[in-house]
Amino acid sequence: MFASPQDTIAALATPVGTSAIALLRVSGPAVGEIARALVSTAGNDATSFAPVYSPAPTLGGGVENSGNAASSGSKGEGDVPTSASPGKGDFLPSPALLPLAPRVATRADYRALSGELIDDVLLTLFRAPASYTGEDTLEISCHGNPYIAQKILEDLVARGCRHAAPGEFTQRAFLAGRLDLSQAEAVMDLIHARGERALAAANQQLRGSLGRHMQGLIDRLLVILARIEAYIDFPEEDLPREDQSWVGTEVDKLQVSVSKILETNHYGDILREGLRVVILGEPNVGKSSLLNALLGRDRALVSERPGTTRDYLEEMLLLGGFPFRLIDTAGLNENPEEIEAKGIEKSLSLTEEADLLLLVIDASRPPPTLPKPVLAAIRPERALLVANKSDLPPHPATAAAWPEIQRVRTSMLTGEGVEALRTALARHAELFHVEQGADVIAINARHAEALARAKTGLARALEQFRAQAPVELVSSELRGVLDAFGEIAGRVDNERMLDQLFASFCIGK
Amino acid sequence: MFASPQDTIAALATPVGTSAIALLRVSGPAVGEIARALVSTAGNDATSFAPVYSPAPTLGGGVENSGNAASSGSKGEGDVPTSASPGKGDFLPSPALLPLAPRVATRADYRALSGELIDDVLLTLFRAPASYTGEDTLEISCHGNPYIAQKILEDLVARGCRHAAPGEFTQRAFLAGRLDLSQAEAVMDLIHARGERALAAANQQLRGSLGRHMQGLIDRLLVILARIEAYIDFPEEDLPREDQSWVGTEVDKLQVSVSKILETNHYGDILREGLRVVILGEPNVGKSSLLNALLGRDRALVSERPGTTRDYLEEMLLLGGFPFRLIDTAGLNENPEEIEAKGIEKSLSLTEEADLLLLVIDASRPPPTLPKPVLAAIRPERALLVANKSDLPPHPATAAAWPEIQRVRTSMLTGEGVEALRTALARHAELFHVEQGADVIAINARHAEALARAKTGLARALEQFRAQAPVELVSSELRGVLDAFGEIAGRVDNERMLDQLFASFCIGK
Repeated sequence: MFASPQDTIAALATPVGTSAIALLRVSGPAVGEIARALVSTAGNDATSFAPVYSPAPTLGGGVENSGNAASSGSKGEGDVPTSASPGKGDFLPSPALLPLAPRVATRADYRALSGELIDDVLLTLFRAPASYTGEDTLEISCHGNPYIAQKILEDLVARGCRHAAPGEFTQRAFLAGRLDLSQAEAVMDLIHARGERALAAANQQLRGSLGRHMQGLIDRLLVILARIEAYIDFPEEDLPREDQSWVGTEVDKLQVSVSKILETNHYGDILREGLRVVILGEPNVGKSSLLNALLGRDRALVSERPGTTRDYLEEMLLLGGFPFRLIDTAGLNENPEEIEAKGIEKSLSLTEEADLLLLVIDASRPPPTLPKPVLAAIRPERALLVANKSDLPPHPATAAAWPEIQRVRTSMLTGEGVEALRTALARHAELFHVEQGADVIAINARHAEALARAKTGLARALEQFRAQAPVELVSSELRGVLDAFGEIAGRVDNERMLDQLFASFCIGK
Repeated sequence: MFASPQDTIAALATPVGTSAIALLRVSGPAVGEIARALVSTAGNDATSFAPVYSPAPTLGGGVENSGNAASSGSKGEGDVPTSASPGKGDFLPSPALLPLAPRVATRADYRALSGELIDDVLLTLFRAPASYTGEDTLEISCHGNPYIAQKILEDLVARGCRHAAPGEFTQRAFLAGRLDLSQAEAVMDLIHARGERALAAANQQLRGSLGRHMQGLIDRLLVILARIEAYIDFPEEDLPREDQSWVGTEVDKLQVSVSKILETNHYGDILREGLRVVILGEPNVGKSSLLNALLGRDRALVSERPGTTRDYLEEMLLLGGFPFRLIDTAGLNENPEEIEAKGIEKSLSLTEEADLLLLVIDASRPPPTLPKPVLAAIRPERALLVANKSDLPPHPATAAAWPEIQRVRTSMLTGEGVEALRTALARHAELFHVEQGADVIAINARHAEALARAKTGLARALEQFRAQAPVELVSSELRGVLDAFGEIAGRVDNERMLDQLFASFCIGK
C-alpha cells in the first residue's frame, strides 16, 4: 500500500473547513527543491506587495526571508544565518541547499507552477533528521479555505509530490526510528483522546512508557535465555540446581508482569471507547431527565456518538477525566409483549457488555418487577442504584430493596444527588485504572494479542522446563515470547501488518 | 463589542475536527510571558522524554530551543541567537524577553497551569510588529484533537487570555495599521473564495489594489479641492475661466472613474456568490441529467448550497475559474394549474434575479409552450438554449425556434455538447469581468454604498459649481465625497461599523 520513502508526500494536516488557517505538510527528498522554488518565485513579487506577515527582522533568527528571498540562491554570506555560538559544532550549509532557514516561519507568496498566485503563506522548513518524519519536511500555513488548500495540494502534486496515505507521515517517523510502534499508536490515541485520563495515558505512551516497560521485560527474558542457552552446547550437562530454581522463579515472575500489563487492556478500552454505562429502568422513573442532568454541565464536551441508527440512545460524557458512554435503553416493560422477545434480548446483550449498570427506580413507588436476567446482572461490583424522585415520600419496600447495591438518592426536581451520582460514576471508573509503577499503561487490542501469545509461550516454556524437556525446546519457546514482546514496540518485519496499522490513522498524520 | 487591544486574545485558528494538527493563535501583550512560562515548564521534563520534534540542530537558525529551553531565562550568551550580519542594525534582546527565538518553531511540552501535561506542541513566537496582528503573537500547533485544543484554550484563559471574537485578529491588524479596511475585507474574501477568479481578485485586493485605486481618486480630488479652496479666502474674486473649465472636466472625469469601479460591484457579487444560472425547461427534457453532467467532473468542488429549504435545487460549480450557482427550477408546466399562481411567481422571480437563463428543450419534439413572462426574459445577452436529445432526429420547428439565442446541441446519452456548454457558460461569466488598468477590482456592497454616495456628491458638486454656487458649498460637497472615498480603505471613525464588519469574520482570524 505504501510506496517507498524515496518519494515525497503531501497532505492537508488540518480538518477541511472554512477557518482562519489551514496547514499542509510535505515530507521527503523533494522538499528542499520545492521550498527553494516557492521562495524564489515569491521574491519576484516582493516589491509590489504589502506583506501581511512582514519579513522577520534581523533581531533573533536574523534571516530576512521574504524581503530578499529572491536572492536566497546567491552566495552572499549575509543570507545564511549562523549560530550565535561558533565552535559548537557549526556547519555552514551552502545557501543553495537552504532556501529557508530551518524552523524559521517565513512569509511567501505561494505561486503555482503556472505562475498563478494562490495565497499568502507561511513556510516552515524542518531539515532531516530534526522533523516529525525524520525527513526534510515543509509546513505550509495558508488561509483556511478548502479551495486554496486543494489548489496548493494540486500544485504540490504537479511538483512531483504524491498524496499521502492515512498515517503515512507517522509511518515514516516509525521507519526512520523516531518513534517505536507503541509511540506511533500513541499519536493516534492522542488525537482521539477524550478526557484527561486518556490524554495522560496517550502522552505517557508517546513518551515511551509502554516501550520502556516492554524493554524491561525483554531485558529480563534475555538474561533468562542467556542462562539457559549456555547449556545448549553441553547437552550432557544438566543445569545446576540453583540455576534451575532461578530460571523457574524468573519465568514465573515474567508471567506475572505480563499479566499485569494485560490487565490494562480493559482500561485502554475504557479510555479509548468510554466506560459503558447502561441505564435501565421502568418508563417514567426519570431516566431521560437523569441523562440530561448528567450531560447538562458538560454539554460542550458531549456529542451523540455517530454511527448507525440503533434502538437505543448513546451519549458521551466526561466525568473525573474519564469518558463515559451512557446508553439509554428503552424503558423496561415499556412494551410488555415485545420485551419478552426482541426487546429483552437487546437489553440483555447491552447489559452483558456494560461496565456498569445504572438501575433507575422511582423511590416513591413499589420496587419494579424486572426481567430475571436483568435482576441476575445487578451485582455490587457492577451496578449502581439511582433512587429517583427523592422529593416524594419514599416507599418502604423500595427503600429496603437491593441493600447490597450502592444507592444514590436523586431528585430531578430539586437537583439533589446529581453531583453525588457523578462522583460515584467517576469512582467506579477509577476501579479500572491500573498503574505500573509510576506509569499509566493502557494497552490496545494489538498489544493484548501479542501479550496473550507471550503469556501462553511463557506458560508452555515453564511447563517444558519443569518437565526437563531439552534445553533447545525451552529456548525456542522463549524466543517466540521474545518476538511477541518485540512486536509491541515494533521490531516487526510484517509489512502488511504495518500498512494496516497506519492506514487507520488520519490523513496528514 | 471588542475590548481594548490591551488584553490578550486566543482562539483556535483551524476548523474543529479530528486531524493531524490543530493550530491556536494568541495575540497581545501577555504573549511573551505565556511563551516564557510554557517553555520553562516544558524544560523541566526535557530529560525524561523522547522528543517527537527533536531540537533544532545548530545548523542554520542555530537555536537549540527545546533542548536547553529551561535555561532560556538565564543570561548565557549562547542562548541568544544573533544575526549573521553584525552591523546591520542588530539589537541583542535580553534573554528574559525572548523565551523563544522569534519565528523559530520550537517543540515544547504544553503543561497546563495545574502542571498537567496536555500535549506535545510546536510553539512559534512572532514579535511585534512583525506579526499578523502587529502585536506579539504565539502560534501553538498541537495534535488535531478538539479536546486538546479546548484544554489548551481553557489554560490560555486561565493564564489571562480572553477568547477572541470573530475577526478580532484581523481587526487588530487593521488597528495596528498593518492592513487597510479593504485589505482586511480581502482576507475574508480569500478565505471564502471559490474559483480562480475570486482568488485572484481577493489576492490583488489583499495586496492593496483597491486601496491604491482609492488613493488615486483621493489624490485627484485633493488637487481639485486645493484649486477651489484657494478662492474661499477671496470671495470677491471668481475662479479664472481656465480654472473653471479645468475643475469641471476633472470632477467629470472623477465621476467616470467612480462609475467604472462601481460597475465591478456585480462582478464582485458573482465572485463571492457565484453567477446565478437558472435552468428552465419542461419536464423530461433532461434537466437533471444535464445538471449531473455539468457537475460530474468537478464533484469535489461542488456542494449543495447550505441554507433554508427552498422549492428549487441549487448547486455550486466551478467553470473557467468562476463559481456558478446552478438553480434547477421545477419543470415548467409540470403542474399546469398551479403554475398560473405560485409556481410561475417563483420561477419568474428566479428568472428576474438570474445572470443567465439556461433554457433546456427537447430538440426532437415541437417547441415548448412557455409562460409569457419567461418567453419575454429569453434575450440574447442573458440566455443560452440547450437543445438536448441531439441523438434523436431533430424536430424542424424546434430547430428554427429562437434563432437569435446562442444554442448548444447536447445529448445526455452520448455526452455530446457538455464541454461546449461548459465553455459557453465560462465565456458568459467573462462578460462580467471588468479590469481597472492592470488590476482586477471587484468591490463589495459596503464599497458600492460608499461609492454611490461619492458619485451623488460629485454630481451635486458639479451642478452647484456650474450654477456658480458659493465656493464653500462646492468645497463642502467635495469634502463629503472625500470622506466616502476614505471609508473604503478605512479612515473610519465609526466604531460600530467596524465591529459589525469584523464580526462577520471567522473566529481565529
